[in-house]
Amino acid sequence: MHIDIIAAIPDLVREPLQHSIVGRAQDDGHVSITVHSLHDFGVGKHRQIDDYPFGGGAGMVLKPEPLVRAIEACQPDGNADAVVYLTPDGTPLKQTHANQLSMHEHLILVAGHYKGIDQRVRDHFITHELSIGDYVLSGGELPALVLVDAVVRLVPGVLGDASSALTDSFQDGLLDAPAYTRPAVFRGHEVPSVLRSGNHARIEAWHDEQRLEKTRTRRPDLLNNDTEAPPSTSEASASSTD
Amino acid sequence: MHIDIIAAIPDLVREPLQHSIVGRAQDDGHVSITVHSLHDFGVGKHRQIDDYPFGGGAGMVLKPEPLVRAIEACQPDGNADAVVYLTPDGTPLKQTHANQLSMHEHLILVAGHYKGIDQRVRDHFITHELSIGDYVLSGGELPALVLVDAVVRLVPGVLGDASSALTDSFQDGLLDAPAYTRPAVFRGHEVPSVLRSGNHARIEAWHDEQRLEKTRTRRPDLLNNDTEAPPSTSEASASSTD
Repeated sequence: MHIDIIAAIPDLVREPLQHSIVGRAQDDGHVSITVHSLHDFGVGKHRQIDDYPFGGGAGMVLKPEPLVRAIEACQPDGNADAVVYLTPDGTPLKQTHANQLSMHEHLILVAGHYKGIDQRVRDHFITHELSIGDYVLSGGELPALVLVDAVVRLVPGVLGDASSALTDSFQDGLLDAPAYTRPAVFRGHEVPSVLRSGNHARIEAWHDEQRLEKTRTRRPDLLNNDTEAPPSTSEASASSTD
Repeated sequence: MHIDIIAAIPDLVREPLQHSIVGRAQDDGHVSITVHSLHDFGVGKHRQIDDYPFGGGAGMVLKPEPLVRAIEACQPDGNADAVVYLTPDGTPLKQTHANQLSMHEHLILVAGHYKGIDQRVRDHFITHELSIGDYVLSGGELPALVLVDAVVRLVPGVLGDASSALTDSFQDGLLDAPAYTRPAVFRGHEVPSVLRSGNHARIEAWHDEQRLEKTRTRRPDLLNNDTEAPPSTSEASASSTD
């Protein structure tokens, strides 16, 4: 998979891509990522990338020409699978989107900044608009990093232990169970005895029960929404998505 | 405001904090941010920070001792306003949380990694659990950066133009209006004529109408949920939140 990231602040994006799973995925050749500075496609002597909004109002808007030139430079043949704009008014990103995007060969991510990008770019050159959540950020750079992380870890071969990704929160619509590690007693607080019983059937039942209970308490919306909570393979959770 | 960030991969966090609004907020003295490496609080000669989960299963769990030592080192008097753990099973972060957190003096952010942190730390040492969205990431480092960005830009004095933050998406429960900038015609696509009319009343009415229509089409959930969509100050949107 190849990912192009177009950003007004490329330095904000570059360093985090070198670490952890995304960094190793590049080292191992599973994915290649190129960060493009929007300024390289800026207009005129000053490589201008933004301008005042028509109709007035606070904030600057990213100009159409530099963005479209950058998008076209990333796909001279127009063959990218998706041109994704990260924006707070996009479709809320869910794990299913990450799953779908992880099956593509070439993604172009556009990180907005200031008050966003010219609407004509959104109308004619962007194929997907995604929001990482209902809050306001300074720009699309962090959301682009979030999307890269969510997608790259699902690319086949990237995670050494494939079952680790499958047991994460959201992959089956339930939150993860509480986790405990050594020491067995920490400042007077003990690990639940069932987890130290060695009885794998009981442990699995406890995990299922905890996941369902936590989801019921914290995120009943996940259980009530069929599209967000596909039936789990475990009996306990399957019976809950009625 | 002071923010401590405790992370297993501190280098992933440090560089992005130097840029854009968060970087300038530190330069201008509005906020100070310290990044702590969890490894500095690791156990034993090898400064171990993670271990296998009790009860088995894929993935490693962050051990309790290093985390609690780090949290205590950040607040010797236990006086932090909030100790926030970023986790996919936390409360979904909304703009209202960012608003609330921006009024505090001292935040400690704990970025998990691997399969999460020992539940006893969550039960006894964490005060807030927040999720930036319903998707799985490699760790809490990017979510911590997202939270810092969302919060810091709301700290008084950080944004030069205060009205810019107020007109962002979500601050009044509606999505932002489409934005346009020069040129007036780009590859045959024209800017809506109303925005070039100079008639401020008409422009404002158009903005309100566009915001409401976009929110109705893309995110009707924002209009139906009173807690997420406080009445707007504009007439068009106030009449919609019935």
